[in-house]
Amino acid sequence: MFKAKLESAKEFKKVVDTMATLLDEICLQVNEEGVRAAAMDPSHVALLSLNIPRIAFEDYQADEHEIGIELEAFKKIMNRAKAKDKLILELDEERNRLNVIFENQGKRKFSLSLLDLSGATTKVPELEYHNVITIKGDALKEALKDADLISDHVIMRASPYEFKIEAKGDLNDFTAEFSSEDDAIISIEGEEEVKSAFNLEYLLDMVKGVSKGDIVKLYLGNDMPLKMEYSLAGCELMFLLAPRIEE
Amino acid sequence: MFKAKLESAKEFKKVVDTMATLLDEICLQVNEEGVRAAAMDPSHVALLSLNIPRIAFEDYQADEHEIGIELEAFKKIMNRAKAKDKLILELDEERNRLNVIFENQGKRKFSLSLLDLSGATTKVPELEYHNVITIKGDALKEALKDADLISDHVIMRASPYEFKIEAKGDLNDFTAEFSSEDDAIISIEGEEEVKSAFNLEYLLDMVKGVSKGDIVKLYLGNDMPLKMEYSLAGCELMFLLAPRIEE
Amino acid sequence: MFKAKLESAKEFKKVVDTMATLLDEICLQVNEEGVRAAAMDPSHVALLSLNIPRIAFEDYQADEHEIGIELEAFKKIMNRAKAKDKLILELDEERNRLNVIFENQGKRKFSLSLLDLSGATTKVPELEYHNVITIKGDALKEALKDADLISDHVIMRASPYEFKIEAKGDLNDFTAEFSSEDDAIISIEGEEEVKSAFNLEYLLDMVKGVSKGDIVKLYLGNDMPLKMEYSLAGCELMFLLAPRIEE
Repeated sequence: MFKAKLESAKEFKKVVDTMATLLDEICLQVNEEGVRAAAMDPSHVALLSLNIPRIAFEDYQADEHEIGIELEAFKKIMNRAKAKDKLILELDEERNRLNVIFENQGKRKFSLSLLDLSGATTKVPELEYHNVITIKGDALKEALKDADLISDHVIMRASPYEFKIEAKGDLNDFTAEFSSEDDAIISIEGEEEVKSAFNLEYLLDMVKGVSKGDIVKLYLGNDMPLKMEYSLAGCELMFLLAPRIEE
Repeated sequence: MFKAKLESAKEFKKVVDTMATLLDEICLQVNEEGVRAAAMDPSHVALLSLNIPRIAFEDYQADEHEIGIELEAFKKIMNRAKAKDKLILELDEERNRLNVIFENQGKRKFSLSLLDLSGATTKVPELEYHNVITIKGDALKEALKDADLISDHVIMRASPYEFKIEAKGDLNDFTAEFSSEDDAIISIEGEEEVKSAFNLEYLLDMVKGVSKGDIVKLYLGNDMPLKMEYSLAGCELMFLLAPRIEE
Repeated sequence: MFKAKLESAKEFKKVVDTMATLLDEICLQVNEEGVRAAAMDPSHVALLSLNIPRIAFEDYQADEHEIGIELEAFKKIMNRAKAKDKLILELDEERNRLNVIFENQGKRKFSLSLLDLSGATTKVPELEYHNVITIKGDALKEALKDADLISDHVIMRASPYEFKIEAKGDLNDFTAEFSSEDDAIISIEGEEEVKSAFNLEYLLDMVKGVSKGDIVKLYLGNDMPLKMEYSLAGCELMFLLAPRIEE
């Protein structure tokens, strides 16, 4: 069996929105410890990993299951979440469906056909980073949206005291500068200067669920993948984005 | 003469919006008791009846008149209503126009050409129902919007203790369940179990003007028309919707 | 050098939005007294003049410069202004760029390529008016939007006690009436009755930056240009709009 209840359907909607922006489908691995998933985007540039420990749920009961979800349909259903709705996710093993139930003034139950995605597990590579930037999510998101006016990719630079996002256009340029003293920065770690270039469209997809008050961790190296971590309502999201190697 | 003043132009806008969604034109029957109108939608599936007793108006003076209105033009004008605008409706018999006047910081007067719709009266049939559901308008509206994700029609079921809205899609399903104890329900009356199917597009049009705090009455039978009643700022709206007979 | 700091980027955004609606490009004349500019719209129907005295800035340092700006690009950048962002405008003489810097949780710097618009100065004609209407900006703006439902031009009429905006359509009409006692009116000056007709699209462009709380001054004559003045966050805007001469 699998039955899990979340306090806020609207918060979980952000998690599903973010997954649906990068991925077409995902296989949730559920067991008594919680829910896990990992997948590459269709063009194999970005990897998303999700971890929801059972403590993030109001109620949680689960045996071991693989639940294959078509994310566009799941997203449309989650977009129906209203402000005070609680969310129940419940596996209907007989009909091979996931029941998505909004509880509030009454009970609104969607039942979603499942996909067979077993065996489609993605291994998350372990990478070592020396530069770690902990930054307010909205400041990062706005700087990326700024850069989007100017170019389709950015260079991220980190030094011991500074984090920069740069975009160069044909006519106009953009640079966001965050120093250790800026309000946006929680901390900047790392002894060296590093830089990598990334596709902006993916970056914007990755921060889609981020809103004011969320804290984002960025792990940066030289021409290395960007690792990004943040959590939404107890759901831990991790992303790896391949660097853009400039000729 | 006909001159009537309403406290809130913005509330009356919702009434006009709802009428304009279902109907192309309407003939208002005004007399000293108030304003009445009834009409079928162009495909004769839904009937709308409006009753505004004179008590709903701040000021009201009227002889007997038939005022034929092109609803798309009236709706566009009413969409110009601002938060604190009062509304004056005034018949200009000489020019055969309805003056639609917004009063607030100044006076903004639209004058709307009238249609000759005399003789186009619609009789409202008297139907008898045993099952009556009184439900919060926003809960009903959201459940119908949910169902719209899944199918283009719904089955409504009522039993002595429960009211259900069901939609079946090719892949996914939806059911909204409201029991007597749910916050959304004011009351459920009726001894029998009944069910009827309805076109969802019409249902969504019928609840268009409903917002939080409005209470909706549903009268349900077996393969019978749905009767829906609610009032907006003292304007009583009643709808009849033909059932969808499934082969 | 030229370096100027404004308290609120979001307020200045409205100034740039308004300029960009009427004009393609503008040449800012900066000197130690402040920033000035004047230009005709491409079809030579409307003239816009901008005056930002140095007192409107939080910090201000300037030699004499002409700064030629492509307004569509400037507008897109200014649209990135967030609620608490301060704005720094800084001339980079070496690279011939204007740095547009948003300061808040960090520093987001756009650098905008400049145009050579020297010699493109527009002289603002001095006109004499007897009728001056001082009106709340939102009341004027809403009345113009109302009129836009009905026609593509309006007649403005002023008398010693009243100001009217009239639009005539094929079927329907509109009149906004403001008398000296109405809340919308600060004052109506002028002994005579005057009237002029104007293109509505231009009028709507001219009031684009106006919001609740702004006060607009209208100078009206008989078949004379309309002069409109208002200020946004210390930036003084003046417009002249050629009348529509009706055959």
